Amino acid sequence: MTTNIQQLETDFLNYVKKITAYEEALNLMYWDLRTGAPKKGVEGRSEVIGLLSSEVFKMETSEEMEGYLNQLLDEKNKEHISEIALKTALDCKKSFDRMKKIPIDEYQAYVTLQTKAESVWEEAKEKADFDMFRPYLEELVATNKRFVEYWGYEENKYNTLLDIYEPGMTVDILDNVFRDVRDGIVDLLQKIEKSDRRVDTSFINEHIPKANQEALSIEILKQMGYDFDAGRLDESVHPFQITINQGDARITNKYDEQDFRIAVFGAMHEGGHALYEQNVSKDLAGTPLAGGTSMGIHESQSLFNEIFVGRNKNFWKKNYDLLKKYANDQFDKVPLDDFYYAINEVRPSLIRIEADEVTYPLHIIIRYEIEKGLFNDEIEIKDLPAIWNEKYKEYLGVEPDHDGVGVLQDVHWASGAFGYFPSYALGYIYAAQFKNALLKDLPNFDELLAEGKLEEIKKWFNEKVHQYGKMKKPLEILQEATGEGLNARYLIDYLQEKYRDIYQF
Amino acid sequence: MTTNIQQLETDFLNYVKKITAYEEALNLMYWDLRTGAPKKGVEGRSEVIGLLSSEVFKMETSEEMEGYLNQLLDEKNKEHISEIALKTALDCKKSFDRMKKIPIDEYQAYVTLQTKAESVWEEAKEKADFDMFRPYLEELVATNKRFVEYWGYEENKYNTLLDIYEPGMTVDILDNVFRDVRDGIVDLLQKIEKSDRRVDTSFINEHIPKANQEALSIEILKQMGYDFDAGRLDESVHPFQITINQGDARITNKYDEQDFRIAVFGAMHEGGHALYEQNVSKDLAGTPLAGGTSMGIHESQSLFNEIFVGRNKNFWKKNYDLLKKYANDQFDKVPLDDFYYAINEVRPSLIRIEADEVTYPLHIIIRYEIEKGLFNDEIEIKDLPAIWNEKYKEYLGVEPDHDGVGVLQDVHWASGAFGYFPSYALGYIYAAQFKNALLKDLPNFDELLAEGKLEEIKKWFNEKVHQYGKMKKPLEILQEATGEGLNARYLIDYLQEKYRDIYQF
Repeated sequence: MTTNIQQLETDFLNYVKKITAYEEALNLMYWDLRTGAPKKGVEGRSEVIGLLSSEVFKMETSEEMEGYLNQLLDEKNKEHISEIALKTALDCKKSFDRMKKIPIDEYQAYVTLQTKAESVWEEAKEKADFDMFRPYLEELVATNKRFVEYWGYEENKYNTLLDIYEPGMTVDILDNVFRDVRDGIVDLLQKIEKSDRRVDTSFINEHIPKANQEALSIEILKQMGYDFDAGRLDESVHPFQITINQGDARITNKYDEQDFRIAVFGAMHEGGHALYEQNVSKDLAGTPLAGGTSMGIHESQSLFNEIFVGRNKNFWKKNYDLLKKYANDQFDKVPLDDFYYAINEVRPSLIRIEADEVTYPLHIIIRYEIEKGLFNDEIEIKDLPAIWNEKYKEYLGVEPDHDGVGVLQDVHWASGAFGYFPSYALGYIYAAQFKNALLKDLPNFDELLAEGKLEEIKKWFNEKVHQYGKMKKPLEILQEATGEGLNARYLIDYLQEKYRDIYQF
Repeated sequence: MTTNIQQLETDFLNYVKKITAYEEALNLMYWDLRTGAPKKGVEGRSEVIGLLSSEVFKMETSEEMEGYLNQLLDEKNKEHISEIALKTALDCKKSFDRMKKIPIDEYQAYVTLQTKAESVWEEAKEKADFDMFRPYLEELVATNKRFVEYWGYEENKYNTLLDIYEPGMTVDILDNVFRDVRDGIVDLLQKIEKSDRRVDTSFINEHIPKANQEALSIEILKQMGYDFDAGRLDESVHPFQITINQGDARITNKYDEQDFRIAVFGAMHEGGHALYEQNVSKDLAGTPLAGGTSMGIHESQSLFNEIFVGRNKNFWKKNYDLLKKYANDQFDKVPLDDFYYAINEVRPSLIRIEADEVTYPLHIIIRYEIEKGLFNDEIEIKDLPAIWNEKYKEYLGVEPDHDGVGVLQDVHWASGAFGYFPSYALGYIYAAQFKNALLKDLPNFDELLAEGKLEEIKKWFNEKVHQYGKMKKPLEILQEATGEGLNARYLIDYLQEKYRDIYQF
């Protein structure tokens, strides 16, 4: 009996390994498409991606998979299998249920809709024409509502969507923490507005050649502990991190020769994601557990590096000379303090991805409130532009001239990713909580930054977060690393303290 | 009935398309491994390649495949299917038979042997220790002999191996043309040796930065008509061309900063392969017919560009200034004629891949004679080093100091590729025949080169060779393009005429 179960576990893990092999091939194809695949090969490539993806779908929903899951997750067997096999089975079961509950023709129609909607969105954004995109968005939301009915939900329909990206996250939890974040930031913004301090940023936008920015990015990534023997850095239109396999976590960067901040903070952001992926326990290789546990925890790693390290004055005590080495003479007469103020200027704006670290969460909260309203039938799609603009006016004091810089700015809804946005703000909140816990173990955090000893910080995250992959749920990781649940206080405290100094209120 | 056959044809072509989708993924993974994949990802990658390759093997030898082939190739159905479906089925049938006739355990043992043999060979070459490699080579030859028995053969066992790389090629044909080539070249070498002309190459080996060589390679590739929207150029240890899909024929190059010839002629060689792949008819997409028809015809395209274009004085009339633009001042005082002599210096040497265009075929003929002897039980493995050295002495007048620069220099035998070498010389012979035929349509060939109008030449090959992919057999292509069969005379005439001028005999 035990022998049979062990054989079953081995067969199951081999089956799962085959699925991850396909995913490695698919990820390499995505990476290649976005880093220089020639354009005439794109059409053929898309067909191949479609074909191999459908093979993955078949394996994930096959009778063979169902058989493994039924047996391994049977109460009498569960205790006889390894923890890795059990958690792998639970993860596969979640995907299996999600996919099997949707009628196959509805699923295929949805995939087609997504593709079409993304291309319509691109044009609509360009033309600032919401009405052009509206029927697609209506169909996307309607389909996702039907899917939620198929999948089932507890308390709030939107919870089911949140759970896709952040397992265990609910509207109840988010309403609370997002209220705290919003109140804290609105209060802080008022203080900043009243301040007389004006930040000089005149020296930022000067020309630095791409090659220099790349060399600088590489030096900073090495300092962070990014392992170039287990990854590579390339250029792409939008920076991203992608994991090909456990020894190959790639990142890309974008270079604006008139604004070094894009490359420096982009590298630190994607590098943060990659540190997570590079340091998952090797025991999890070949299973779906060998990656970040949720979008939110993943984002905590990128934001920790980008913001809590990269926008800290001590980091620049170490690295300002390095920047000067690769820049022209634009910084030669700029004292470190002024440089530090400049890279932390607060300025409420319309575009999420260009937001400063204070106003960024407000962009997310607006999207969260709208998504929640849509899935609880409190908001109609036709009213979206007006609601969007009102909320920007209320929270940020700015109003879009047109929908291209308003409700149409992000691709997420066009690709059907409802429930994704909150992870950006969650990552930020998690990161502040981790920072607080880390300070207990490494009270010399600021000195480590000033000395370039970022490896010490990486080691802390390796132990508390990275190694577990998906073996622990997001809130489990948070609880064990910090001793408490989700709490927005640390983020607000961090922002208040930092900006009190910068804006001297 | 007809409807059924048409449905069968569609199903079969979809099945084949799925196989080519896997091959696209595999080719991208190979390309990636050789152009910069991080080393810690290599082990995982190898497993994934093994896994997806075995899926391809399963599909190519499946009962489903057998069913399609039996029905489509049935006499009563053959005439009702399209020519593409028929030739695809014949191509699949050839692979099917080759794989199915070998017992699966022998096949697997052979794959393991190949991998092991390649790594032993690498060390043996390094240490110049033939005895270390000998047992593996014995096993490789013995296994291939057994395979030939399984596959069957006509007249000569070696014919079956030749047919893998050059369909339709036989020992009878090769014995004749290779004798002509050998006699012609040996005669030519004697004349060159007697000549008083000494070629000055002192200005060749000066430093040219890699970036300059790359820019120069790109300009030359564009002139050749290589479509950068349907391919890309990267760097690798050994240059190669690989086709990802019909709109994506990639090439790599190698840069020696002390010898620009490596990059320039390497780019033209790989570019020639790529021109073939980029210009196969789009009707063949998704079938195994969408590629070069044989190793020999493929090599004719690379060698035509590298040698018949790249080492022609008229090509340099157009491009010598371009080279000077990217070089330092090393050529400023060198007249074009002297430059032309230098890049065509003849010097018998030990290493095949470093050979000049006159002696190159002799390196191939030596290998051909040895392979033929091995598979006809006329040569024993233990005698190989002695036989090798004797032949080099006899044909080229040089003798290896050790086996590392002798019998161990090539990887081909270690990877079991017996029958492959002749395609290098065949490609050269084909290329000379194509040149002769092309001159009838484009008598102004030299002027086109001098004016940089290489597109005209490309168009000729598009029409006569490229478009057909594997729809025509190598000797069919040759016959239709040149009006005759394999004939070594054109190569010998070309060499005699060219070197009579250079060495003034």
